[in-house]
Amino acid sequence: MKGVMLGVCPDASFVDISHDIPAHDVLAGAFELAASYRYFPQGTIFLVVVDPGVGSIRRGIAAECGDHLFVAPDNGVLSIVFDEAPPHRIVELDDPRYARPPISKTFEGRDRFAPAAAWLASGLELTALGRRADHPVMLEVPRPKVTSGSLDGQVVRIDRFGNLVTNIDRRTFSGFARSDSVVIQIAGRDIARVISTYAEAGSGELCALFGSSDHLELALNGASAAAFTGATRGSAVHVGRRA
Amino acid sequence: MKGVMLGVCPDASFVDISHDIPAHDVLAGAFELAASYRYFPQGTIFLVVVDPGVGSIRRGIAAECGDHLFVAPDNGVLSIVFDEAPPHRIVELDDPRYARPPISKTFEGRDRFAPAAAWLASGLELTALGRRADHPVMLEVPRPKVTSGSLDGQVVRIDRFGNLVTNIDRRTFSGFARSDSVVIQIAGRDIARVISTYAEAGSGELCALFGSSDHLELALNGASAAAFTGATRGSAVHVGRRA
Amino acid sequence: MKGVMLGVCPDASFVDISHDIPAHDVLAGAFELAASYRYFPQGTIFLVVVDPGVGSIRRGIAAECGDHLFVAPDNGVLSIVFDEAPPHRIVELDDPRYARPPISKTFEGRDRFAPAAAWLASGLELTALGRRADHPVMLEVPRPKVTSGSLDGQVVRIDRFGNLVTNIDRRTFSGFARSDSVVIQIAGRDIARVISTYAEAGSGELCALFGSSDHLELALNGASAAAFTGATRGSAVHVGRRA
Repeated sequence: MKGVMLGVCPDASFVDISHDIPAHDVLAGAFELAASYRYFPQGTIFLVVVDPGVGSIRRGIAAECGDHLFVAPDNGVLSIVFDEAPPHRIVELDDPRYARPPISKTFEGRDRFAPAAAWLASGLELTALGRRADHPVMLEVPRPKVTSGSLDGQVVRIDRFGNLVTNIDRRTFSGFARSDSVVIQIAGRDIARVISTYAEAGSGELCALFGSSDHLELALNGASAAAFTGATRGSAVHVGRRA
Repeated sequence: MKGVMLGVCPDASFVDISHDIPAHDVLAGAFELAASYRYFPQGTIFLVVVDPGVGSIRRGIAAECGDHLFVAPDNGVLSIVFDEAPPHRIVELDDPRYARPPISKTFEGRDRFAPAAAWLASGLELTALGRRADHPVMLEVPRPKVTSGSLDGQVVRIDRFGNLVTNIDRRTFSGFARSDSVVIQIAGRDIARVISTYAEAGSGELCALFGSSDHLELALNGASAAAFTGATRGSAVHVGRRA
Repeated sequence: MKGVMLGVCPDASFVDISHDIPAHDVLAGAFELAASYRYFPQGTIFLVVVDPGVGSIRRGIAAECGDHLFVAPDNGVLSIVFDEAPPHRIVELDDPRYARPPISKTFEGRDRFAPAAAWLASGLELTALGRRADHPVMLEVPRPKVTSGSLDGQVVRIDRFGNLVTNIDRRTFSGFARSDSVVIQIAGRDIARVISTYAEAGSGELCALFGSSDHLELALNGASAAAFTGATRGSAVHVGRRA
């Protein structure tokens, strides 16, 4: 894909966000992208390919959201971005002039998405890539549930250190309780407080803190919280108030 | 190696094709390179280092093939490229002006190959790197065998998703049978057809299709075909016609 | 981090030295950096983030050593660089103009170190980043011990091929014995000589040679010496003279 892009746009510079998305896990890709896109400069073009696997019939799309551009299959991988930064416009990648013939159905990343991203990087207008595409596929993104007595979320991503990233954002948490008056339950274990930096945790202590994407993370100092707790993506995270 | 190259050619831009070639597996490197080089723009310089391991006595070479340049040990890693795009010229990397002294015998990639590639990127003529080198080492590349009733190939590469890439190219296959009238056998399992996209396969179905490099691939939707079948590089792939 | 850096310095070019430092292993990071920094061109800025884990209270620093610049937490990860190339000056990263607000305590790499490195890449003077910082944290770096009859070192790094890199440099070794008159002991096994290239070793032979960083390495042709010997980082390496 990078070779194809350099053929269209020789000055392109590449940053690899992640090669660790589990195969076919579109939602994991959506969360990974959501955790990083906003730190890139305006005008950045995000080329996102996570194959949904079995039974996929999908079109390719390009979208402009805030100051960023996205090229991806229309499989929901942009759902969280679309939620956070509603797209100004979305087009379908249907103009063959901006694809690489012959287009292999098994490698659209190389033959359709990469050329489209590179043409955008070369200055092509988004609207030149194809016709307007409404109603992109939106995944059901799990949201935390707040009741009067509890806040329930789940693990949505596990990073390479084994930290458990949840879908509980700081705003939702703050509206529910204070950091020092909660009990957080994950995989049968209790965590009694939210700390603000790893330095506050004891060695081997399972702890909770707001991570780089401002979502609640469960971490184990110096080791993998995922391995320690046995929690996986989707594991329930329960937050209650202490008396 | 990249640090050394930037010292010679500060404007070089790098694309890493793969860091997953099994150690000392020169043939796997040859297939990986063959699967991607043609997608890079003309003038691209490919720096290929796969160490052949025990007992190696080798020279470094640089070659011009079609619109591309290659720098590699003369250990056969360029065999398939040389077959597909016969080299206009090959030189031995023997001019010490374009190496990094002292040349460590255990790290020629850094001290000899990287500087040579960077000098080419800076515009140096290939012929300046050293004297003409004929008869490069050519590996015995396994080719599919066609008889009146069967087409026999093998697994030559396993990608990071566990897909089994064979040495059966689309042209050879098409000359033997139609996609919908074959039985493909791999590791004791039968596959009854060749599909044109993953979307046609059922969940958990072992399937066959032509992959990104236009060679027959055996894949399992949503999982690793290598793990499922137990096949490894070199495993036989038999194609027969159905009555 | 790269996104943040591109926002400050759009022309920055990145080389990733390693993503394989074991979590929280600052000393392993120090050795990895020491093995490669000198091969990069003058003016290169090294951004080094290895989190020390539990109980860390640390400042960020930037240092100029020889022709190179370094940005890192003050946790000792620069210890070997500072030994080899005493810093001309060290400053603390305390000027908020060159950080990314709000500075997350759990992701200083992104919010403090990355912007500082990018400002340096943009031409900012080191001294603009903050006030002078003396007495950086220095790790106890294990050094080889020489007596009249023995040279004792240890494994300090295991590379991705399973080679065991020791802290025994060529100069110390040469002062102790000749390459062909030693016995090297590692994890209960004997190695009878130091070879100068892999080509001299037999297949499956555990061998010793000076590797790319000019330190003694123990390697197994075509396989992992770490897996074969069971040695880990810290394992003792004993060198004796043969009669």
